[in-house]
Amino acid sequence: MLPSANEHAITVDLDLDRPREECGVLAIASTSDDVARSAFFGLYALQHRGQEAAGIAVSDGRAVRTHKGVGLVNQVFQPGTLDPLVGGLAIGHTRYSTTGSNSERNVQPYVVETIHGPLGVAHNGNLVNADQLRTKLLERGAGLQSSSDSEVLALMLAGAEGANWEERLAAVMPSWEGAFSLVILAASKVIAVRDPWGFRPLSVGRLPSGGHAVASETGALRTLGCETSREVEPGEVVVLQNDIARSVRAMPPREQLARCTFEHIYFSRPDATWDGLLVHQARQRLGEELAREHPVEADVVIPVPDSSTPAAIGYGNASGIPYNEGFVKNRYIGRTFIEPTDDLRRQGVALKFNTLPTNIDGMRVIVIDDSIVRGTTSSQLIRMIREAGAREVHVRITCPPVISPCFFGVDMGSYDELIAHQLEVPEIADHIGADSLGFLSVPRMMKALGRDDGYCNACFTGEYPVPVQLSLDISKQRFDGVIQ
Amino acid sequence: MLPSANEHAITVDLDLDRPREECGVLAIASTSDDVARSAFFGLYALQHRGQEAAGIAVSDGRAVRTHKGVGLVNQVFQPGTLDPLVGGLAIGHTRYSTTGSNSERNVQPYVVETIHGPLGVAHNGNLVNADQLRTKLLERGAGLQSSSDSEVLALMLAGAEGANWEERLAAVMPSWEGAFSLVILAASKVIAVRDPWGFRPLSVGRLPSGGHAVASETGALRTLGCETSREVEPGEVVVLQNDIARSVRAMPPREQLARCTFEHIYFSRPDATWDGLLVHQARQRLGEELAREHPVEADVVIPVPDSSTPAAIGYGNASGIPYNEGFVKNRYIGRTFIEPTDDLRRQGVALKFNTLPTNIDGMRVIVIDDSIVRGTTSSQLIRMIREAGAREVHVRITCPPVISPCFFGVDMGSYDELIAHQLEVPEIADHIGADSLGFLSVPRMMKALGRDDGYCNACFTGEYPVPVQLSLDISKQRFDGVIQ
Amino acid sequence: MLPSANEHAITVDLDLDRPREECGVLAIASTSDDVARSAFFGLYALQHRGQEAAGIAVSDGRAVRTHKGVGLVNQVFQPGTLDPLVGGLAIGHTRYSTTGSNSERNVQPYVVETIHGPLGVAHNGNLVNADQLRTKLLERGAGLQSSSDSEVLALMLAGAEGANWEERLAAVMPSWEGAFSLVILAASKVIAVRDPWGFRPLSVGRLPSGGHAVASETGALRTLGCETSREVEPGEVVVLQNDIARSVRAMPPREQLARCTFEHIYFSRPDATWDGLLVHQARQRLGEELAREHPVEADVVIPVPDSSTPAAIGYGNASGIPYNEGFVKNRYIGRTFIEPTDDLRRQGVALKFNTLPTNIDGMRVIVIDDSIVRGTTSSQLIRMIREAGAREVHVRITCPPVISPCFFGVDMGSYDELIAHQLEVPEIADHIGADSLGFLSVPRMMKALGRDDGYCNACFTGEYPVPVQLSLDISKQRFDGVIQ
Amino acid sequence: MLPSANEHAITVDLDLDRPREECGVLAIASTSDDVARSAFFGLYALQHRGQEAAGIAVSDGRAVRTHKGVGLVNQVFQPGTLDPLVGGLAIGHTRYSTTGSNSERNVQPYVVETIHGPLGVAHNGNLVNADQLRTKLLERGAGLQSSSDSEVLALMLAGAEGANWEERLAAVMPSWEGAFSLVILAASKVIAVRDPWGFRPLSVGRLPSGGHAVASETGALRTLGCETSREVEPGEVVVLQNDIARSVRAMPPREQLARCTFEHIYFSRPDATWDGLLVHQARQRLGEELAREHPVEADVVIPVPDSSTPAAIGYGNASGIPYNEGFVKNRYIGRTFIEPTDDLRRQGVALKFNTLPTNIDGMRVIVIDDSIVRGTTSSQLIRMIREAGAREVHVRITCPPVISPCFFGVDMGSYDELIAHQLEVPEIADHIGADSLGFLSVPRMMKALGRDDGYCNACFTGEYPVPVQLSLDISKQRFDGVIQ
Repeated sequence: MLPSANEHAITVDLDLDRPREECGVLAIASTSDDVARSAFFGLYALQHRGQEAAGIAVSDGRAVRTHKGVGLVNQVFQPGTLDPLVGGLAIGHTRYSTTGSNSERNVQPYVVETIHGPLGVAHNGNLVNADQLRTKLLERGAGLQSSSDSEVLALMLAGAEGANWEERLAAVMPSWEGAFSLVILAASKVIAVRDPWGFRPLSVGRLPSGGHAVASETGALRTLGCETSREVEPGEVVVLQNDIARSVRAMPPREQLARCTFEHIYFSRPDATWDGLLVHQARQRLGEELAREHPVEADVVIPVPDSSTPAAIGYGNASGIPYNEGFVKNRYIGRTFIEPTDDLRRQGVALKFNTLPTNIDGMRVIVIDDSIVRGTTSSQLIRMIREAGAREVHVRITCPPVISPCFFGVDMGSYDELIAHQLEVPEIADHIGADSLGFLSVPRMMKALGRDDGYCNACFTGEYPVPVQLSLDISKQRFDGVIQ
Repeated sequence: MLPSANEHAITVDLDLDRPREECGVLAIASTSDDVARSAFFGLYALQHRGQEAAGIAVSDGRAVRTHKGVGLVNQVFQPGTLDPLVGGLAIGHTRYSTTGSNSERNVQPYVVETIHGPLGVAHNGNLVNADQLRTKLLERGAGLQSSSDSEVLALMLAGAEGANWEERLAAVMPSWEGAFSLVILAASKVIAVRDPWGFRPLSVGRLPSGGHAVASETGALRTLGCETSREVEPGEVVVLQNDIARSVRAMPPREQLARCTFEHIYFSRPDATWDGLLVHQARQRLGEELAREHPVEADVVIPVPDSSTPAAIGYGNASGIPYNEGFVKNRYIGRTFIEPTDDLRRQGVALKFNTLPTNIDGMRVIVIDDSIVRGTTSSQLIRMIREAGAREVHVRITCPPVISPCFFGVDMGSYDELIAHQLEVPEIADHIGADSLGFLSVPRMMKALGRDDGYCNACFTGEYPVPVQLSLDISKQRFDGVIQ
Repeated sequence: MLPSANEHAITVDLDLDRPREECGVLAIASTSDDVARSAFFGLYALQHRGQEAAGIAVSDGRAVRTHKGVGLVNQVFQPGTLDPLVGGLAIGHTRYSTTGSNSERNVQPYVVETIHGPLGVAHNGNLVNADQLRTKLLERGAGLQSSSDSEVLALMLAGAEGANWEERLAAVMPSWEGAFSLVILAASKVIAVRDPWGFRPLSVGRLPSGGHAVASETGALRTLGCETSREVEPGEVVVLQNDIARSVRAMPPREQLARCTFEHIYFSRPDATWDGLLVHQARQRLGEELAREHPVEADVVIPVPDSSTPAAIGYGNASGIPYNEGFVKNRYIGRTFIEPTDDLRRQGVALKFNTLPTNIDGMRVIVIDDSIVRGTTSSQLIRMIREAGAREVHVRITCPPVISPCFFGVDMGSYDELIAHQLEVPEIADHIGADSLGFLSVPRMMKALGRDDGYCNACFTGEYPVPVQLSLDISKQRFDGVIQ
Repeated sequence: MLPSANEHAITVDLDLDRPREECGVLAIASTSDDVARSAFFGLYALQHRGQEAAGIAVSDGRAVRTHKGVGLVNQVFQPGTLDPLVGGLAIGHTRYSTTGSNSERNVQPYVVETIHGPLGVAHNGNLVNADQLRTKLLERGAGLQSSSDSEVLALMLAGAEGANWEERLAAVMPSWEGAFSLVILAASKVIAVRDPWGFRPLSVGRLPSGGHAVASETGALRTLGCETSREVEPGEVVVLQNDIARSVRAMPPREQLARCTFEHIYFSRPDATWDGLLVHQARQRLGEELAREHPVEADVVIPVPDSSTPAAIGYGNASGIPYNEGFVKNRYIGRTFIEPTDDLRRQGVALKFNTLPTNIDGMRVIVIDDSIVRGTTSSQLIRMIREAGAREVHVRITCPPVISPCFFGVDMGSYDELIAHQLEVPEIADHIGADSLGFLSVPRMMKALGRDDGYCNACFTGEYPVPVQLSLDISKQRFDGVIQ
């Protein structure tokens, strides 16, 4: 629980203009009794997927114990908090969430007692038919304590027909529309589930001293010591029990898969492997392709750190223009509740970035950034580069313009907030003060990834792989029901 | 939320050997928009009924907002925490609960979204058929997040038939067996409910500036400014809405009411009026009657402070033996997580009490105590009095020996823990080192209260007003389900 | 450190109109290595002397370690905080202090390294020449970090001439004017010091398992297991080392001693013995004498709990009018930072007290209170009694009117704040709405204590036993220097 | 104050094998009244110089108010804590310190009241004659509350001769031997002081809306909006008052200056300019020079992020071998008090780093690191690279072997801890499992910096610019006096 003063303070969001991932999930089925500490360190490796809340639930084969809270992993878990979490089966979660005094209610994992024993659920993604599913549950007489999809998923499972959790999953999973990479904790097993579209990543690996682990990203699996891992396939259910990983195909994968391209562009850590690609390599290739699609004469290529670094290296390699660093990022500036003075506010991102003048001064500079979503910070970064002496500033973006919101678990903002929904590319260039601006096109982007198909590019194209009610105000996604 | 370190530290319970009340409830339906602060101060006046957790839920007519946590009222509520709780309808709760890392889950009020809108429940009491009700709910496909009866009550209401909450209450209330003094919060009304046996107190009063308040004790109503109040009758449902208090008789009162005698003996604050009796006066009469039933020649009558003070005054008045104070209580010693040294441990209650030698030395002393439950502290108190120079120590108890556990919301301990279940009165006297020991008998106790009937004396007689499964280990009451 | 939000919140002081004691001190010289835990429990027994800060310093014979902070003893000390405080010598302190964001700097014990080794000081009292002593130190080139007299005392000792701490004490002690009951911690000994006027209490006792303890009140010594104890005499220095208590007469006692009468009236816990009198007994005698000086026909005598209870018993005994309780005090209402609503504010002390109508209704009531200082709460208490049905309300005070501030360690308020400095007794009676009002006179008060002389009654008479600069604004006492 | 549980928990230090800087300092003299918020954001930009404590002291021209505590800047300062810090003059500090329950005492700024008014001091550096200075102060009768040099400096100033602080500084500064970059706060001015050797950086700039700022690094000045800045010269005193920066030459600079080379190698953020060099550029040049001194055939050059990135870019440029990233760093893994399981512990730095196999696999890899101090992590990093498929691993270090401790404010470890004090370079190569290992030589390093002289390279050469008592156990530096 955050100190109350914080909850109501004015938040100064010093984060850049980025889409926001909603979650990271983790599961471990181990032969050890001390799986909570492994889960704790595994969550650290997923912290970038959600910094506002974290939780771990552990089963010792009979009872499930949970610790969760608002804050970073190392704020939520203190010495002593892991001690009671005894057992060999665990699920964990890190969450990006909207702020608010009651957001604790939405912190995952969500754990309930059911007629079939304890059940814990943590998920990454978003169901597009959650409202209908909620209404059905409520009509059945259920009570909902949160606005989280996890509760809906858990209660549907609790009331489903079937001899075991696998059968119950098979019974209700077809009614779930949208993105869900799930980990489920029962008294004596852990289950990993991925939606048939394959929106969000989920992988499973073998632990060095026995048992298995599941995580949103392979980097977390390597942190836990897994030497190799494989994806949980779209529509696949993997049951981890008694040192065995058993695959159950609950649903066939959709003909048209819908992996989220933004995992490659921005969300996943560069050490993640997804769809057979190391993300660092994918980003380097996006940079290379960007150099081919939007070449420009210049003296130096610099990234907006840290996410654009591999792409800038790639752009440099492909163009022959020297790569260098042009910004230094203050790694300690996170979210603060203390408002800057007007003077400081005017400087905006300067609190988070300083320029390196000797690498910029007198030069024609190419700035590589991974995306422009709301367009709120690009103009400030460009102004800083000019003040550091750049003669020209050419902005290159490793993805296409974002013109549509995401309904599958990413907070892109609403139509009104998306700058590319309002302005054409030249207008954006003008708005941010760039000498030139180039976005990677969808075909080039897919070419860089080496794929023709199988990805969701709805935020770039407006073509959603699952029908969504476009009339929906996107802010509805954050609506917290009548219980607040 | 307590710091985690505390949760697992060794608790040194310096509390006396007392039964433990489980809860205090409060509700306000006001015309103001600032009802949360009133609820906060009202809970202070119920703090003695439960010191381990507290919570308030408020409705503004549409949405319900909640703040609750582990700790005393003034630890749970800090400046700022009340600010978001906007609205004119509130329920509140203070709780005595078993410790444990997950006890937060059981903190009330329990609030859910239902198909009929938000619903909040806080209760005092215990259902003897909770396990069966839980099972029925689980079989219906529900998921339970806590071991609290409040959740069971809320989910049963959520799934009940009826055009409004009053009808739904009428539909499910007959299936609730045991003690329940409930306050219910809906979007636009507050409802107070008392079981047809009338086990636990509940009263309603009119607020000075409009609206009504409901509380476990009338003292809290007076703190809120209510000049007069009346009991919510056994089986009665009182609906507070739009400045009107509407009585709905959901169930007829039982022919044999079962008010908890211990409310008079120990639980309620002396300023509470219950069953037409001011508790201070009731205790004074218990002391007077005790003087008649167990007279003894002595020089002074002293209470074990604070609960036995009125009875000691009464004993003094009836016997003509001077009343005085013999103990000083350290009001700051509560629960601490720091273990005493062996030296200090040997002194036991001396950390909480010191004697006043000039009031004891060379005298024959009558010590008035309200109850002997486990018998763990009486011997130490008596030794202290002897060390202060008492020539004789005569112990008089304002109730009969406690021989049976309570299943209606009071933690008396299990059969094994009750000293009077193990030993006869003379053996107890011997065990605690008293020169004589007298318990008030059931008939005399009832005479002191001026009632023939209508009270539950099961803890003294073993005759339960509602059938209970006596095989039940009492510790089952504290069992926290499979979710811990 | 208090949460910052609290520091700046509006404080609603629900405390009654009482003088405020500034401190309690404690010292232990033990043969054990675990003296910190004893000190912790000993401080609990002095908590009533100061609830705003607490601290313990421990020496293991070589190094001194300290833990201190703002809050109650059980807030400042958590599991683990005592562990590093290893050693057999300790001093401790509880403090009443003015609030403010930097009050942490003034929390005692004050510990410094000196050329003669580590030195810790904790004190109760107030030097009237502190400003001159501070100036002298500063002129010598010293730097002062707090506004506490303890720092002044410690730095004077650090720079004093002498072969050991006893000699250094003897060198500087004559320059200290005013009230000081001190405990001093050096590497290998503990020293207790009391000013030659004997303003504030200080006693020493022998611990059951070896060694000695010193405390402001004998109750704390009994809590630690000391069966007997004696006062540290005015002007005496007691050195505790190697299981020996060695008395050093540093200064002769003043011919006219100046014990604080208010220790008997209000400050000390009733179980304290001071000047050969058990405080409970002294208060009872004050009540008896009050009955003789200000008799009135009435039906019941009630105290304002808790401090006036013994006096009310005494008044009852002497007058033959029945004693009973008329108020119930909410023991959980302490200091809160949440402001009451206007409705609640209008009720004032009703948040802290409720009446017991059956003990008051239709009666002529004598209310015993220990003092009227600012007069802010008496009128509300009297109104409550009238609302409970009293026919007449006669107020009797166990001390004379307070007409002058205290400069010896008690916060009485300034002249402007003292109601008896502004109004005559009949005017006060009128102001508070009493049918009659009687204060105990100085001679009767001294008679009740069985003493002719040897007490400081300056607050009642304006005759200070040590010259003070009356021009001094009393608020100067709270001035925090230029460092805030 | 950290929760006590943490203080005594086992610390798992996941930091790499780096020297540890002791402090960052900051000062602002502004025409605004709201200088505390600027200081807060300025400290963020110095957070990398010390993550264990932070503090700000502010003067409003009359009184000085302070807030400081253990933790990161954004943990120490919460909403509300800055509010009372009203005024236009401020000094601030971030600190790396040894852990311990009493480390709070050493948190800076250190503020005292003196005969000349309030005085605050914050410093970066270490005096080699601090023990002698402490002894002199103690002999003068002073008491010391901490083991911090700041207290010694402040108390010497408090007792110095002189008509104003500048004169007093001039009087005592010659007796201070060693490194000190100081900021001093008086009631109406701020003073910046740098030792005549110029060990540690300190710069002054003009604020955009009037007034001046001083900081350890120019990056912090740019964060505050200063467009240009200059160094405070060795031996210079700069007085900031009334919008004027007045230079006072208190002492002539030493003939042989002794700037700390490690500021360029590792401590300063890359955006700092020192001695006319942008640190990023200096590091790039170190890499270039390293390529010339220790060339090797390879396929890729990778840095150990983040500090070695510029040097790796430089090495790549100079050698023509492609630069790429080979490690991903988990930016959220800081200090945790939760111990890893044995499995995780075996992996060591793998919790903090993962490799990027596609950039390494099958390649001959050059790893650039800035230093090897204790040698504890290099072997693990090399093993990870080999496991990612590297055919050869060549380690290149951008400075010479560290063979001697630092006595000027950097915690390098003692002789026993320095691997290069124990082993020759080929032995180190063998120890860490590198195919080859090359350290930059002192002459090449100085050539890279473009300087012949004026730097302290004592840690590489053992030749100290100020005589130090080499017999001194380095751990003495951490000794906390007799007060602990």
